[in-house]
Amino acid sequence: MQNHLSYDEIMALEQRYRASLINSLGGFKSVCLIGTKNTLSQTNLAIFNSLVHIGANPPLIGFIVRPDTAERHTLSNILATNYYTINHINETIYEQAHQTAARYEANASEFDATQLTEEYKHNFFAPYVQQSHVQLGVEFKQRIDLTINGAIFIIGEIKHVYYPQECLHNTGFIDLELAKTITCSGLYSYHTTQLLGRLSYAKPNTLPHKID
Amino acid sequence: MQNHLSYDEIMALEQRYRASLINSLGGFKSVCLIGTKNTLSQTNLAIFNSLVHIGANPPLIGFIVRPDTAERHTLSNILATNYYTINHINETIYEQAHQTAARYEANASEFDATQLTEEYKHNFFAPYVQQSHVQLGVEFKQRIDLTINGAIFIIGEIKHVYYPQECLHNTGFIDLELAKTITCSGLYSYHTTQLLGRLSYAKPNTLPHKID
Repeated sequence: MQNHLSYDEIMALEQRYRASLINSLGGFKSVCLIGTKNTLSQTNLAIFNSLVHIGANPPLIGFIVRPDTAERHTLSNILATNYYTINHINETIYEQAHQTAARYEANASEFDATQLTEEYKHNFFAPYVQQSHVQLGVEFKQRIDLTINGAIFIIGEIKHVYYPQECLHNTGFIDLELAKTITCSGLYSYHTTQLLGRLSYAKPNTLPHKID
Repeated sequence: MQNHLSYDEIMALEQRYRASLINSLGGFKSVCLIGTKNTLSQTNLAIFNSLVHIGANPPLIGFIVRPDTAERHTLSNILATNYYTINHINETIYEQAHQTAARYEANASEFDATQLTEEYKHNFFAPYVQQSHVQLGVEFKQRIDLTINGAIFIIGEIKHVYYPQECLHNTGFIDLELAKTITCSGLYSYHTTQLLGRLSYAKPNTLPHKID
């Protein structure tokens, strides 16, 4: 049976219940670890499930920050240093990734607290997560303040990409399932995936077919 | 073995190859059908994989539009009428959902072309997809032009929610796997999911545990 909730009913819900419900409605989400370092060389690592593709030319990626949460150190480090890493989460590290959302003291690094390993390469300022199989080095480009609720939209340009060679198709597609990347739903539910199909480019008057 | 691509190498790639690669890097994504109607009552339906949660209080959801694509009718209808629906995609309809990306003539409805069914309820202006199990009725709130690449970020407020009753947990979490919602990666790859675990709220000095 299908249930219905109106706006007024949603707004009347207890706050944490509403957060859990509304966070479920956007579907399965990208979930990643964002690595940063402040100007005193202290590292930070935080889980985000609000990643969104902005464009490929140039390669741009965005995410939403809520400044009143554990995410605030990520934001201040990015604004102070301009660089961050985006690291895919796999089955082996998803519990550690979730744990980075705890409100650690300002002088504690989530890398140490969760036993994830900092990795530095190609002279990039921010730390990658060594246990992650798909890693992006990103340069901060734009901050957009969402006046509607105080959230902040951060846009960055992808400067470095690392991925497992065996996952790359000859179309440029990267097989994230083979790379063991996971997805999430709501605030705390993590999932592996199972391929349904890769479909051909959609054209009028012909149905899509499965491709390799 | 891990491959590396620099920004210069990415920018030197053939355009469609680059689009396919960069679209893969954001991880598994929310994928949905957005239903609209213009002022002449002609309906439109288009697939989007750029949904992002903005906030729960009030309930806000966003997505990215590229105005030079088949997505342009969705944008013009939303700006003209203020209302749209967001419909989750399930395994049964994913090929039809993909097909909505074809460039149909301006006077053709993707509902007819793909044999998905318009559904109207609670006096909401825009059409829902009857075959979808999780449906949102959304009111347009804000348009943000991303000057960095010409994309447009659309923010709306959730006015109606429909979901299968058996999917709702007592925390407010909606079990999207039970609702048969799927996820996507890259531009054309569709996946079902398999639960790894739902984890307890993260706190310092204690590890998360699995919850129901």
